[in-house]
Amino acid sequence: MKIELAENYGFCFGVKRAIKIAEENKNSATYGPLIHNSKEIARLEKDFQVGLSDDYKSFAPGDKAVIRTHGIPKNELEYLVANKVNVIDATCPYVTKPQQICQEMSEAGYDIVIFGDATHPEIKGVQSYAIKGAYVVTSPQELASIKLSEKVALVAQTTRKVEEYLAIANFLIPRHKEVRVFNTICNATFENQDAVRKLSAKADVMLIIGGKNSSNTKQLYSISKANCSDSYHIEDESELELSWFKDKKLCGISAGASTPDWIIQNVIDAIKKSLD
Amino acid sequence: MKIELAENYGFCFGVKRAIKIAEENKNSATYGPLIHNSKEIARLEKDFQVGLSDDYKSFAPGDKAVIRTHGIPKNELEYLVANKVNVIDATCPYVTKPQQICQEMSEAGYDIVIFGDATHPEIKGVQSYAIKGAYVVTSPQELASIKLSEKVALVAQTTRKVEEYLAIANFLIPRHKEVRVFNTICNATFENQDAVRKLSAKADVMLIIGGKNSSNTKQLYSISKANCSDSYHIEDESELELSWFKDKKLCGISAGASTPDWIIQNVIDAIKKSLD
Repeated sequence: MKIELAENYGFCFGVKRAIKIAEENKNSATYGPLIHNSKEIARLEKDFQVGLSDDYKSFAPGDKAVIRTHGIPKNELEYLVANKVNVIDATCPYVTKPQQICQEMSEAGYDIVIFGDATHPEIKGVQSYAIKGAYVVTSPQELASIKLSEKVALVAQTTRKVEEYLAIANFLIPRHKEVRVFNTICNATFENQDAVRKLSAKADVMLIIGGKNSSNTKQLYSISKANCSDSYHIEDESELELSWFKDKKLCGISAGASTPDWIIQNVIDAIKKSLD
Repeated sequence: MKIELAENYGFCFGVKRAIKIAEENKNSATYGPLIHNSKEIARLEKDFQVGLSDDYKSFAPGDKAVIRTHGIPKNELEYLVANKVNVIDATCPYVTKPQQICQEMSEAGYDIVIFGDATHPEIKGVQSYAIKGAYVVTSPQELASIKLSEKVALVAQTTRKVEEYLAIANFLIPRHKEVRVFNTICNATFENQDAVRKLSAKADVMLIIGGKNSSNTKQLYSISKANCSDSYHIEDESELELSWFKDKKLCGISAGASTPDWIIQNVIDAIKKSLD
């Protein structure tokens, strides 16, 4: 069986940047997981003493608080600053952007629609910048019962599929005088999704490696599954099953934006070893 | 054979308003045809002495110049005003709107894309308000070779089909940071198109009455033709052919926004008479 990596996969710009920031700030703590990959977080704790707190009120004045790639809600950031916590911002710049858009658009009087998962930290953060609130939806159907004004601004979670974003835009455009569509889906997402689309069309078994709570990994898996029914979303090599590879010719591999190369390499090594 | 009129058809708000303005301004002349219906224009000339000039430079100071529903290019309007022509503006307010949008958006640094027919007077007028120019297209394919900036504003000819407008928006959104989509297709267009869609799905012969150069009439005809192959675009009763109605059960009728009721009534009377 041949193993082929997708043309684009794994760590994105924002994740690389955040890990570098964390590594440069030993003896700090992130507020919430820095990225959606528990193994990489464990490595940062072990090698760089970067801890993890789930409560922003746990930071004392002078403590170093690293803000996760997904960003945090505005009021929590304001609390940290007001309490003289040493804030180290590792929010991905592609996430800061929709936060700014939400703030500017609500100040300019637009109703705001966010395409994304309301329970995801990125979206909780982005939504908090809409000073008059925002509607968070994952499908046009959810908009049917919402009364919006004539002017609507639309932003997307950075890791979403563009086809689904367009479906929401297409619902709004005929119903409103102006729809201001901000393309906040990040390029890494576009590129990784395109590469999975291509690879899963020819592979007969696909592995998508990444955190089970990682939004972008879940999107990659859903694209892969549509093309290749033998697609598996795993966090690491411990989940591999030999039966997946029986009589297969090409195993395609991709990984989410928060999956480090060393985990991908461990998976490849384990497959090769099992096939020996 | 039964004859059924579409739920919405014929004169729209802007055309009714323009005819009223023309009737109130005897001994004037329109610059270009007031609406795309030569018979109604002949009636205005006969009953209200409203003439027609095809050259804006033909108006002398003090002359009454009625501006057509489709609007005119900005520089021509400025010429008329500068030359102290008595300008009577019958531009449809739904056309004034995209003119204003073009001006505002180009001042705000957006690249402008207009979905419409570059040779249509409405679009010539709208385009002239884009101070740095605008791209006029009828399909996404035409955009493929055009290099646009990160911020794009999109407006549509008032009489276009919304599905085709969305296709253009869908092409632009993934390729640009921000696409500001203005829904400038007018409600009368929406309503007349919806009604034709409904009626042509059940009729076995369809008549669409309106000027051969009328954009909105052509759109109605194209929608009708897709549902009912026996669809005919006529200007008046003189074009009717008896063979169209042979063995037909339901004749659906709609008319463009510039088609007066009296022409529609003449068509209905002629069909009834021929079937007697």
